[in-house]
Amino acid sequence: MFSKHYHSIKPIIWKDGNLDLLDQRLLPAEHTYLTLTDIESVARAITDMVVRGAPAIGITAAYGIVIAARKRFAENPDTWKEMIADDLALLAESRPTAVNLFWAIDMMREVINGLGVADPVATLLSIAQQVHEDDIAANVKMGELGAQLITEKCAVLTHCNAGALATGGYGTALGVIRSAFAQDKISLVYADETRPWLQGARLTAWEMVQDDIPVSLLVEGAAAHIIKTSQQSENPVRWIIVGSDRIASNGDVANKIGTYALAIMARHHGIKIMVAAPTTTIDMNIASGDDIPIEERADSEVLCCRDNRVAADGAQARNPAFDVTPAELVDAIVTEKGVVLKPDFEKIRALMTNVK
Amino acid sequence: MFSKHYHSIKPIIWKDGNLDLLDQRLLPAEHTYLTLTDIESVARAITDMVVRGAPAIGITAAYGIVIAARKRFAENPDTWKEMIADDLALLAESRPTAVNLFWAIDMMREVINGLGVADPVATLLSIAQQVHEDDIAANVKMGELGAQLITEKCAVLTHCNAGALATGGYGTALGVIRSAFAQDKISLVYADETRPWLQGARLTAWEMVQDDIPVSLLVEGAAAHIIKTSQQSENPVRWIIVGSDRIASNGDVANKIGTYALAIMARHHGIKIMVAAPTTTIDMNIASGDDIPIEERADSEVLCCRDNRVAADGAQARNPAFDVTPAELVDAIVTEKGVVLKPDFEKIRALMTNVK
Repeated sequence: MFSKHYHSIKPIIWKDGNLDLLDQRLLPAEHTYLTLTDIESVARAITDMVVRGAPAIGITAAYGIVIAARKRFAENPDTWKEMIADDLALLAESRPTAVNLFWAIDMMREVINGLGVADPVATLLSIAQQVHEDDIAANVKMGELGAQLITEKCAVLTHCNAGALATGGYGTALGVIRSAFAQDKISLVYADETRPWLQGARLTAWEMVQDDIPVSLLVEGAAAHIIKTSQQSENPVRWIIVGSDRIASNGDVANKIGTYALAIMARHHGIKIMVAAPTTTIDMNIASGDDIPIEERADSEVLCCRDNRVAADGAQARNPAFDVTPAELVDAIVTEKGVVLKPDFEKIRALMTNVK
Repeated sequence: MFSKHYHSIKPIIWKDGNLDLLDQRLLPAEHTYLTLTDIESVARAITDMVVRGAPAIGITAAYGIVIAARKRFAENPDTWKEMIADDLALLAESRPTAVNLFWAIDMMREVINGLGVADPVATLLSIAQQVHEDDIAANVKMGELGAQLITEKCAVLTHCNAGALATGGYGTALGVIRSAFAQDKISLVYADETRPWLQGARLTAWEMVQDDIPVSLLVEGAAAHIIKTSQQSENPVRWIIVGSDRIASNGDVANKIGTYALAIMARHHGIKIMVAAPTTTIDMNIASGDDIPIEERADSEVLCCRDNRVAADGAQARNPAFDVTPAELVDAIVTEKGVVLKPDFEKIRALMTNVK
């Protein structure tokens, strides 16, 4: 099912009744799993970026609700459904932008509401595991569909990490890259390092190196120069391939801060941008990207670099974690249900009628 | 002469017959001057970025040649003019992009060729000191001319450090910002942190804080989002103000990597970009930016962050230190001899006829 260029990476493991998360803050230097046994630590792990990436956050939330249900049911089998509402609310506050989190919470809430009086754990766990498996399958399907869009061998540029680590496994943008590389359609992957968390340098480069896919890191400032000058080289950048944290019903795309700039650069240079995301990332409840809440994280993430203060005392910082790329700058949205070229509301609605 | 918003910063000091350079690699945590007594250490200080910024590199080179001439003349007063050619060649190899370096070397070479048999040191020193003073005066003049272009109070965005530290003092882009802030035309300065060397975080933020000019740091990836969303805020970004390392005769501008992306963003959002640079940065010998050599520095600067390896072993990196913004994206070039709007070859040539 996977392309041969996938050395299996497991960011999320359900083991012995607990949730093990690969601590992505420590990669690539250390590979440490944190074992989470209560909903508070699951919510904190999402807030603190132990796990990140919209699909991975959704899966983590689903497993977290299994843990919460187990505790609430053990405390009181009669009132657990009311009590767990607090846990769902806590989870919903962990991060605001990725809609997969809210999708998972809403879906699990609906399941809980429909349950009888028996112990709910086995049922909820099987659903969480299905969410996890479905996500991996969706990634593989997106890899296949996205690779079809790449019609001539070229270099691609990616931003942040939309890889196995951001999902159940395989990856959205990196899933497309893995599948296209296996088909000999990609000569080189340029990866933005992605300040302030350096997901490109720490996570994407690591995934690519493990899978023997040639990767060249860039500071964000170098992307426009590389896109322009690469056109005359043996590795012309023809596609920018990214993931998404939330797609509005009109096709506006929220993704890691810096994506919007890349979309402007793509248009300026006549190259294309592909957004790979499962349909769980599409939010039909909002009209446009203006309605997507953009998380603003602590200014210390910008004032410091790898925990060392670099800016002068007294300097302020802005630290939006995401930005919105308007649909008119997006060339393709690739989902497990199909590809939408030049997205708009009608095309997105048509796609979503295929989603149960 | 300076605006009141200038707490004098001296990156380059001639003292007791030697050249003292503020070690900019250690700012803002440490303020240490290195005393240089031979041409080899001057060249190395430029290569290793003890001193950086095109005008500051030019001034450093001029003083470096005084040191070289003193040694060569002491060794052999008859052959020193031939021997110093090696020193000039060494200096010319220190960094390739900033043309001020070559301007200073060529100018000092011409002076040396015209000298008689007497000890050359006093003459050369007075010329180097004049270069230094002229640069500061040029910055102040650019500050005045650049501030005139800002017609309504707004926020501005700057990239890298084109401040006192990059020049003899006061700054090119930051000189304009200082002067405009003193005239109550600037509400806030957004500063790109400027990976990989973090000149924005370490140097620009420090200069602004010292002068009580409000500064907000950004990762490069956030610039497009901030430009867009600021338009409806109390601090709309109306100008991007940067320096330059070399301007071609057609108005193409080489500057710190990331500037080209900002120019594309400015055009996309209908805001303007101003390049502040002394006429010593204009290279009439080249037809366009295609002829500007772009320094590619060690990949370790990208693979590491503040001396800590962050990328996986096996990852490669590209590290161009500069990029070229084509003249058609530049709204204004501000020099000490006047302002060129929408630069082209004819306008630049007309400006340069005013330069002796």
